[in-house]
Amino acid sequence: MEDHDGFGFGISTEEDSVGFSGYSDFHTIDWQRDLARDRMRHRHIVKKRKKSLWELIKGAHDALSGWLCVLLVGLVTGCVAGVIDIGASWMTDLKFGICPQAFWLNREQCCWSSNETTFDSGNCSQWLTWSEFMISAKYGFGAYVMSYLFYIFWAMFFSTLAALLVKNFAPYACGSGIPEIKTILSGFIIRGYLGKWTLIIKSVGIILSVSAGLSLGKEGPMVHIASCVGNILAYLFPKYGRNEAKKREILSAAAAAGVSVAFGAPIGGVLFSLEEVSYYFPLKTLWRSFFCALIAAFILRSINPFGNEHSVLFFVEYNKPWIFVELIPFIGLGIMGGCIGTLFIKANIFWCNYRKHSKLGQYPVAEVLCVTFITAVVAFPNPYTRMNTSELIFLLFSQCGISSDNPICDYNRNFTNVNQAIEIAAAGPGVYHAIWLLVLAMIVKLILTVFTFGIKVPCGLFIPSLCLGAIMGRIVGIAMEQLAYNYPKNWIFSGECTTGDDCIQPGLYAMVGAAAVLGGVTRMTVSLVVIMFELTGGVRYIVPLMAAAMASKWVGDALGRQGIYDAHIALNGYPFLDSKDEFQHTTLAGDVMQPKRNEGLSVITQDSMTVDDVEVLLKDTEHNGYPVVVSRENQYLVGFILRKDLNLAIANAKRSLEGVTGQSLVIFTSSTPVQNLGPAPLKLKKILDMAPITVTDSTPMETVVDMFRKLGLRQTLVTHNGRLLGVITKKDVLRHVKKMDNEDPNTILFN
Amino acid sequence: MEDHDGFGFGISTEEDSVGFSGYSDFHTIDWQRDLARDRMRHRHIVKKRKKSLWELIKGAHDALSGWLCVLLVGLVTGCVAGVIDIGASWMTDLKFGICPQAFWLNREQCCWSSNETTFDSGNCSQWLTWSEFMISAKYGFGAYVMSYLFYIFWAMFFSTLAALLVKNFAPYACGSGIPEIKTILSGFIIRGYLGKWTLIIKSVGIILSVSAGLSLGKEGPMVHIASCVGNILAYLFPKYGRNEAKKREILSAAAAAGVSVAFGAPIGGVLFSLEEVSYYFPLKTLWRSFFCALIAAFILRSINPFGNEHSVLFFVEYNKPWIFVELIPFIGLGIMGGCIGTLFIKANIFWCNYRKHSKLGQYPVAEVLCVTFITAVVAFPNPYTRMNTSELIFLLFSQCGISSDNPICDYNRNFTNVNQAIEIAAAGPGVYHAIWLLVLAMIVKLILTVFTFGIKVPCGLFIPSLCLGAIMGRIVGIAMEQLAYNYPKNWIFSGECTTGDDCIQPGLYAMVGAAAVLGGVTRMTVSLVVIMFELTGGVRYIVPLMAAAMASKWVGDALGRQGIYDAHIALNGYPFLDSKDEFQHTTLAGDVMQPKRNEGLSVITQDSMTVDDVEVLLKDTEHNGYPVVVSRENQYLVGFILRKDLNLAIANAKRSLEGVTGQSLVIFTSSTPVQNLGPAPLKLKKILDMAPITVTDSTPMETVVDMFRKLGLRQTLVTHNGRLLGVITKKDVLRHVKKMDNEDPNTILFN
Repeated sequence: MEDHDGFGFGISTEEDSVGFSGYSDFHTIDWQRDLARDRMRHRHIVKKRKKSLWELIKGAHDALSGWLCVLLVGLVTGCVAGVIDIGASWMTDLKFGICPQAFWLNREQCCWSSNETTFDSGNCSQWLTWSEFMISAKYGFGAYVMSYLFYIFWAMFFSTLAALLVKNFAPYACGSGIPEIKTILSGFIIRGYLGKWTLIIKSVGIILSVSAGLSLGKEGPMVHIASCVGNILAYLFPKYGRNEAKKREILSAAAAAGVSVAFGAPIGGVLFSLEEVSYYFPLKTLWRSFFCALIAAFILRSINPFGNEHSVLFFVEYNKPWIFVELIPFIGLGIMGGCIGTLFIKANIFWCNYRKHSKLGQYPVAEVLCVTFITAVVAFPNPYTRMNTSELIFLLFSQCGISSDNPICDYNRNFTNVNQAIEIAAAGPGVYHAIWLLVLAMIVKLILTVFTFGIKVPCGLFIPSLCLGAIMGRIVGIAMEQLAYNYPKNWIFSGECTTGDDCIQPGLYAMVGAAAVLGGVTRMTVSLVVIMFELTGGVRYIVPLMAAAMASKWVGDALGRQGIYDAHIALNGYPFLDSKDEFQHTTLAGDVMQPKRNEGLSVITQDSMTVDDVEVLLKDTEHNGYPVVVSRENQYLVGFILRKDLNLAIANAKRSLEGVTGQSLVIFTSSTPVQNLGPAPLKLKKILDMAPITVTDSTPMETVVDMFRKLGLRQTLVTHNGRLLGVITKKDVLRHVKKMDNEDPNTILFN
Repeated sequence: MEDHDGFGFGISTEEDSVGFSGYSDFHTIDWQRDLARDRMRHRHIVKKRKKSLWELIKGAHDALSGWLCVLLVGLVTGCVAGVIDIGASWMTDLKFGICPQAFWLNREQCCWSSNETTFDSGNCSQWLTWSEFMISAKYGFGAYVMSYLFYIFWAMFFSTLAALLVKNFAPYACGSGIPEIKTILSGFIIRGYLGKWTLIIKSVGIILSVSAGLSLGKEGPMVHIASCVGNILAYLFPKYGRNEAKKREILSAAAAAGVSVAFGAPIGGVLFSLEEVSYYFPLKTLWRSFFCALIAAFILRSINPFGNEHSVLFFVEYNKPWIFVELIPFIGLGIMGGCIGTLFIKANIFWCNYRKHSKLGQYPVAEVLCVTFITAVVAFPNPYTRMNTSELIFLLFSQCGISSDNPICDYNRNFTNVNQAIEIAAAGPGVYHAIWLLVLAMIVKLILTVFTFGIKVPCGLFIPSLCLGAIMGRIVGIAMEQLAYNYPKNWIFSGECTTGDDCIQPGLYAMVGAAAVLGGVTRMTVSLVVIMFELTGGVRYIVPLMAAAMASKWVGDALGRQGIYDAHIALNGYPFLDSKDEFQHTTLAGDVMQPKRNEGLSVITQDSMTVDDVEVLLKDTEHNGYPVVVSRENQYLVGFILRKDLNLAIANAKRSLEGVTGQSLVIFTSSTPVQNLGPAPLKLKKILDMAPITVTDSTPMETVVDMFRKLGLRQTLVTHNGRLLGVITKKDVLRHVKKMDNEDPNTILFN
C-alpha cells in the first residue's frame, strides 16, 4: 500500500504542506492542487487532534478560523467604511465653509451644536461659508466669486493630493478595482494589489477624490478596500493566508461586505459577490459571506455616519402602491438606461484606450488636475451638480412632502398639517426651472464621468450611474405626474388617480431610472434589483425595478456584449476566463495544444534521463512543469512534475544525498532499474504528480474550457490513445478564446 | 479535417441530435453529453438562421424560449397556488360550518356579504356552525359535541379522499417531494414524478390534507407542484423538454417559484433553489429563476387569495427596534430550535424506517385514517390546535394591539384611542391560561408531526416547524416582556424600557423561534433568513434572525449531521451526491474502479473484433457503455461507446448495409485494415466518443468525486501510463462514499 497522504502531489513533507503558496506575480493558481493541500492539512490536524488537549484546541481554532476571519473582516470593513463616510462628509463640506468653533464638525453637526431650531437648507449661523468667513459677506457678487474660487481651490487641492498619494505610494489604488478583483478571484496573482499600502492609500484617496467633487463614487472602491481588509486579515489564519485557493473564499466574503457597507444592503452584497465578482463560490461560503456582510452593515449602522440610522446617504422608505400601466414608462426607462449605459461604456473604453496608447497616460497627475479643474468650474454654477452626488440622489428619490423646500418640489399645493395626504398638483415654475437644470446636470455628468472613470485616483462608478438614471427617471416621473394631473379621467389613470391623491410618484421613477442606468453600465441583474430593493426598504417595488433592469440588460446586451467591468478586463488584458460566456466554437483540444504536431515536446522520461539532462532541460525551457513519460519512443504519460519541485529536489539531492552526481539517473518509478553501473540514482517518485488531468486530442474545446473553469485547472495534458501529444495551459485557452472572438490574443497579460 | 460538429459524441445525425433524451427510469444523466447536444443544436440553429426569414423567426423563438418557458411556469404556478389557497381556505372552514346562502363562500367572505359591522373572532350571523345549522344551538354541551363530531367527520372524509386519490392515481404525489426533487435536479431520472397526474392529484390532495387539519403544511408540496408545472411546460419547448440537463434549468426556476408562492418571498425562493435544491445552477439561470419566482408571486398577489394584499396568511409588518441584549434570548431560541429540529429528524426517521420495514407500510390508507382520527380528536378541544396552523402562526407573530381579542393579548392595558402607543403591561390571567394551552399545543403538534410527515398524503414540513418555533418563541417573548415590566430599572432594560413603551415584542420572539426550529429541521441558512425577512417586510430583523438561524444550524449539525431532506434521501437510498459534503478520505481511483485488478474488463478493440464478438459481449454484460482500446494486449484507450448506440448501429448495419455479416470486423479507426479477406467491415468511428474523461489510478478519490460533481459525469475511465485499467461509474462513487461513511452501500436505489 502506498502512502496515500502524499498521493503523488509532491506535497508530502510537513513543511511544504503548510508552506507558502509560492506562486509568482502574474501567475495563475492551481485550484485543484491548493484545495488538495488544504484537505491534507485538515486531515493532518484531525489526526493530531486526538493526541493532546493543546492539539485539540488548535484543531478547534482551525475549524473556527473561517468564521473568525470573516467576523474580523466584517468588523474592520464596517469601521473603515464609517471612517471614510465621516471623512468624506466633513471634507465635502469643507469646500463650502467651516465651523469656526469646532473645525472638525461638518455642516450638519455644526448646526446641531448651535441649538437653532430652524435653518433653511442646512445652513445656520454657526456654520460660515468661506465668503462669510473671509469677507463677512453672504450674498452678492463678491461672495459668490469668493465661494466659487474656494470651491475650485479645495477641489484641486484634494484631487492633487489624492493623485500624488496614489502615484507615489500605491499605484494599484486607482480606479474602482472591481475588474482586478474579478480577475484575482478567478485565480490570478497580482502581488500588492490587496496589500496594506493599497488599503491605506485607497481609503485616504477615496475620501479626497469624493470630497474634490469629481464625478465618481466611493461604492466601487469600497469593494476593493474590503477585499484588501480580507486579504490582510487572512494572513492571521494560515489556513487562508497560505493557501491562495482558500484565501479566495475570504475575499469573496469581503467583497460582499464591501457592497454591503456601500449600500447598506447585506443580501444585495452577497448576491453581487456571487453574481458579479466571485468565481469559485462553494455554497458553504454563501452563509459565511452573508455573515460577513451583515456584521459589516451592522457595525456601520452602529457608527451611524450620517446621523439617520442608515448606512447610506440616500436610503429612502417607500410604501405607496404603483399602477399596472406604469410598467410601460418603467420599461421605457429601462430601454433608455440600457442605451445610456452602452453609450457610456463605449465612450469610456474609447477614451481609456486612447489614454493607454498616447502620451496622456504618462501624465496622470496632470490629467487629474485638468479633469478636476473642469469639473469644479462646470459644477459650481448649477446647484444640482454642486451638491454632493449622494445628496442629489436622495433628493431625486424622495417624495415631495411638507418640509421639502427644493425647487423640484415647487407644486401648487397648500399644506395645512403634517398628517394631510399629499395630493396631486400642478407643477409650479420652480419645477420647470429645476428640470432644465437637471437636464444640464445630466449631460455634464455623463460627459465628465466618461473622462473621470479611469483617471489615476480611486473612483467608483455606481454613484454617477445612479445619479444619471435618477435624473432621467425623475424627469419622466414628473411628466407622468403632470399627465395624470391634467387627464385624471383618462382610462389609464382613472382607476387610481380620481381620489386626488398623489398617485404617480416621481421619486419611484427616479429609483427605477437609477436601476436602469446602473444595470446598463454594469449589467448586474439580480444583485442590482436586490440592492435597490434594500435601499428602499420595501418589497413592493421589486416588479418595477426588475422590469427596468431586464429591459436595460437586454437592450445593453443587444448593443454591446460587455459590461464596464468586463470591458476594462479586456482593455487591460487580464487573464479572466468568464464563466458566464459560453464557448461556442467547434475547435478541438488538438488544435489548441502546445506544441503543434510537428514540434518537439519538452518531456522527462521516467527512468532514462540523467540529472544533467534534466538540468539542461530546465535551463533551456521556461515551462512551469514537465510531463513525465515512459520513454522517448513510447510517450505514454506517467505523471507531471513542477519545475519548482524539480529544481528544489535536485538542489537538495546534490547538497545532501551521497553519490548523486550529474550522471545519476533520475528515476520516477518505484522499482530500481536493473543495470546498476553508474552512480546512485535520484528517486523522485515522491514529488511526481501521478494524477494529472488529461484530455484526448479529440475533446471539443468547449469541454476543455468547461474543465478549466469548473475544476480551476492550470494546465491539462493532451493524449491520443494514451500517448502524450501536448499541453494546454490556461494561457493557451485564454488566447484561443480571444482568437476565436477575433481579438488580438497577444494582449493578454500573463507571466 | 474531421467533421467537428460530430466530434465523436455519436450524435452527428440530425434525428438523434434533436431526439428524445433516451434515459431509462432510475438512471443518472450525463450532463456533459446533454449540454454538448444542446450546444450542437444551438449551432445548427444559428447556421440555419441565415437561410430564411422563417428560420430566423424559429431561431428567435429558440433564443427566447427559456424566458417564455419560465414566464409560463411563473404564471401557471401563481394560478395553481391561488386555487390551492382558496380551496384550502374554503374547505378548512367547511369543517366548522357553512354559509347557507352561498355554500361556496368561506367564513370570512360569508361574513363580508352579511354587512355586519362587528363580529367577534370572525363569526357572524350569516355563517352557521354545524351545530347551529343542524340543531339550531350555538352554545351548550350538545352543540359542542355536534361540532366535535362534524369536525372529526370532515377531517376523516378529507384525508381518506386524499389518501385514496394518491394511492390509486399518483403514488408519487405523497410527501413533500423536496428530497426527490433534489435527487432529480442532481441528474437522476424518476419517470412520472413530475407528471401531470402527480400535479393534479398533489394539488387536490394538498387541499384535502390541509383541510383535514393534519399537522402538515402546503409549502413543501408547493415546490413539488411548481416543479411539475415546470416539467410539463418544458415539453412545449424542445430545447428544454428533450434535453434532461437543460430541463433541470427550468426545474430550478420552478422550484424557486414554488417557494416564492408558498411564502410570498421571491428572493428567498431563488436562494432556496440555489442553496437547497439545485445542483447545476449556472448564473444565467439565477436571473431567469428570479423572474419566474417574481411572476409567480405577482400573479398570486393579484389573485389575492386571503383578501389582505399578501400571498401568505401569516405576513406581518414590523418596525420596532430591538435591544442589543435581546440577542441572548434569540441565540437561546436558536439553540432550542436546533435541539427540537434534531429531535424531530431522529424521531421521524426512526418511525419512517419502521414503517418501511414493517407491515405498516402496506396499509397506507389505514395509517392516514388512524393519524387523522387521533389528530382530530386531540386537536379540537384546544383552540390553538383547532385553528388553522397558518392562522395560529399569524396570531403568534403579531403584536397585541387595540383590536386583539385573543386571550394571548389579555394584558392589563386600557386603550383609549387607536393612535395611543402600546405600553408595556402586566399579563392578565388570559395570557397565563393561553401559555398552558400553547405548551400543550406544542407537545401535541411535535408528536403528531413526527407521525404525520411520511404518511401517504401530500404533506409539507415548513408550517408545522414554523408553528412549533413560533409557540416556543412567543412563550420566551412573553417571559422576557414580563421581566422587563417587573424590572424596568435593571441595567439590561433601562436603556429602552423606561419610557413605558412596549420595548419587548413577543411577536418578534415568535418569529425568531420559528426561524430557529425551521433551521434546525431543514438546515437552511441564507434562504431561511431571507424568507423570514421577506415575510416581515423589514430589514431591521436580519441580525436577530441570523443569530438564531446560525445557532440552530450549529447545534443541529453538532447533534446530527443531516437535515430532514438529506435524511429522507438517505432513507430512500436515492443516488444523491451531495455537493456540500466534502469527501474526506484518502482512497484512490484505483481502489474504487470496477473491475478490481484481478478481474477482466469488458472492452472492445478498435479493429480486431467481429460483429458476432461484439454481440456476445452485449449479451453477456449489462454495462451502459464499453471502452474501446487499441488491442487486447495493448489496452491503450481509444474511446468510449454507448451500449445504446452500439446496438442501434449494428441493427442498422445488418438491415441496410451490404456485405456486413456476423464475421465482419468492427472498425473504430479511420484507416481500413490491411488484410481485406473477410466480409466488408463495419465502420463505427462516427458513433465513438473519442473524448472520454479519464483519470489515472493514482488520482485521489476526492478529485474524482469533485469531477463527478462539477462536470456532471456518468462515468470516468481509469488509466495507468495510458493503459486502461477500469471504469468508475456514478454508482461506484456513491457506493464508495456510503462505504466510507460506514453505511450500507447496497441501499442505494439505482438501475
